[in-house]
Amino acid sequence: MSNQKLFNVAVVGATGAVGEQIIRLLAERDFPVNELKLLSSARSAGTKKKFKDREITIEEATPESFKGIDIALFSAGGDISRKLVPHAVEQGAVCIDNTSAFRMDPETPLVVPEVNIDKISEHKGVIANPNCSTIQMVAALKPLYDRYGISRIIVSTYQAVSGAGAKAIQEMERQSKEVLEGREANPDILPVSSLPVKHQIAFNAIPQIDKFTENGFTYEEMKMIDETKKIMSDATLEVTATCVRIPVVYGHSESVYVELKEDFEVADVKSLLAEAPGIELVDSPEEQLYPLATDAAGKLETFVGRVRRDLSNPRALNMWIVSDNLLKGAAWNAVQIAEYIAIEQKEV
Amino acid sequence: MSNQKLFNVAVVGATGAVGEQIIRLLAERDFPVNELKLLSSARSAGTKKKFKDREITIEEATPESFKGIDIALFSAGGDISRKLVPHAVEQGAVCIDNTSAFRMDPETPLVVPEVNIDKISEHKGVIANPNCSTIQMVAALKPLYDRYGISRIIVSTYQAVSGAGAKAIQEMERQSKEVLEGREANPDILPVSSLPVKHQIAFNAIPQIDKFTENGFTYEEMKMIDETKKIMSDATLEVTATCVRIPVVYGHSESVYVELKEDFEVADVKSLLAEAPGIELVDSPEEQLYPLATDAAGKLETFVGRVRRDLSNPRALNMWIVSDNLLKGAAWNAVQIAEYIAIEQKEV
Repeated sequence: MSNQKLFNVAVVGATGAVGEQIIRLLAERDFPVNELKLLSSARSAGTKKKFKDREITIEEATPESFKGIDIALFSAGGDISRKLVPHAVEQGAVCIDNTSAFRMDPETPLVVPEVNIDKISEHKGVIANPNCSTIQMVAALKPLYDRYGISRIIVSTYQAVSGAGAKAIQEMERQSKEVLEGREANPDILPVSSLPVKHQIAFNAIPQIDKFTENGFTYEEMKMIDETKKIMSDATLEVTATCVRIPVVYGHSESVYVELKEDFEVADVKSLLAEAPGIELVDSPEEQLYPLATDAAGKLETFVGRVRRDLSNPRALNMWIVSDNLLKGAAWNAVQIAEYIAIEQKEV
Repeated sequence: MSNQKLFNVAVVGATGAVGEQIIRLLAERDFPVNELKLLSSARSAGTKKKFKDREITIEEATPESFKGIDIALFSAGGDISRKLVPHAVEQGAVCIDNTSAFRMDPETPLVVPEVNIDKISEHKGVIANPNCSTIQMVAALKPLYDRYGISRIIVSTYQAVSGAGAKAIQEMERQSKEVLEGREANPDILPVSSLPVKHQIAFNAIPQIDKFTENGFTYEEMKMIDETKKIMSDATLEVTATCVRIPVVYGHSESVYVELKEDFEVADVKSLLAEAPGIELVDSPEEQLYPLATDAAGKLETFVGRVRRDLSNPRALNMWIVSDNLLKGAAWNAVQIAEYIAIEQKEV
């Protein structure tokens, strides 16, 4: 990596749960950073953050923040992205957006590097990072899609509270203590901070992530359905999702039923998964080995296990997919995209 | 209920989580009890328990315990049932067995009163109570089965630790405190107390309930598959299950995908469920109302919500089914069966 081109990088949402992981990964992965600009709301501006041996003062994100920036990573919510991404693009930055603002925009590539890295080159300034629960699922299913074809996916999720931000983690920990001490748990944030009704998350399972759409599915469920089809470039793919929040801090788990288009051997499927990029097969029932959220926390891989042929449909498989929702589900996928852009621009 | 016949009742496993609920329900429901015999292992024998205004000394369960007993409710594990139920039957008791010992025995009716109450009269001394996760699912699906027919069920469960007994509850509470205090969680019981490998349940999701069978499914999953077909008296029913333990104390939740044989209107399905015996429809997305484990805890009903038409298969529905696993999932279903037996014997 000598004589490497260095990039001016901006992180928007630098004080959020995902932004902090992005900064940590840029350092750990030794991303070729020249200037690093950390941007946030006016409220957090002025505070300082470490990046390698530098101490960087966080600035307020404004339309003028992006002069000279090569790559801007956004994770400060859809409204901020809708407002600032166009300015960043105009000023020449390639934007990697971790919000839902541009994901379904036909002009914007929606990228999981293990699945559709080829789409990156089609960008017109913005590359969208998919929803956390979608990323780990498509990363695990892509090798099966390529080898056998997939006709149908039915997924039920077990999602960590960190997906709803640092305040949701604090709320779950506070409620857990309240319940353990025999007191009433006071719900304040979850399931959706902007909606009026709150439910206890401690020692509970809440079948609502994001608001409801008119068809009875939530936006989180519709993201899994629509984004999976877009990332796989297959509008015929049948996808059904039920998204549930459970009292886990880091790591989304998914129970996935998948119908393949061709016959398969379970042993071949396991070999495929074991060799797939970004996937770690953890699947040994005899040893009670399968992916667990607590094991996946802090790791970059997507973990797959409980792979077994369906008993009523020999063309179908059941599996259990787990990954750290803040890493592969957000920060790591975004930094992976940034790494590909850096390699591309170096080669040009 | 004047001049009612009174029954000599035995509860085997009287100090267990389910046994305690059975005793409480017999009192609350004013079951026509003459003598109540509380039986347990030698270890717990000698301790006393309240039943209405009586104080009853718990005795050790032996083959001779059942002389004069009319109805015996067993929930002390499969081994105890296999050993003692034949003696109880021989001595004239009708046994309601809450273990898996006799469930798949072709001679033994497997009963959920809302589904197949007619099977009770076929008993030859033993009536089996199904597995907790099966009971609530078939109770909710029966009205749809009768009206439209069901071809396929795909279920992912979110099961409470109380299903693994009082020690598992204590373990989850202890681990939760350990993690909240920044210490290591020490797994000791779950996922399966008799197996060597233990996993942390606090702030985690464990995709293993009971041991693994050779086909890669767990016994818990096979119970849901096999028992559902037996209770519905339909060997053609296609059922797939993934059973997962989550950090909830009371109340199993289930994400259920179900394919019907005939066209339906979602509004009709909701009306059917709202009117079905033992079912409470809790389904108002606009008000963020859906079943929650914390709301179901301590209640006798099975709660159903998130009812919505599948987007890729117009003949399929998705729904969320929740019930207290110790009550409808165990003690209440057993006491319901006892009530039917009492009515039958009174009428004879």
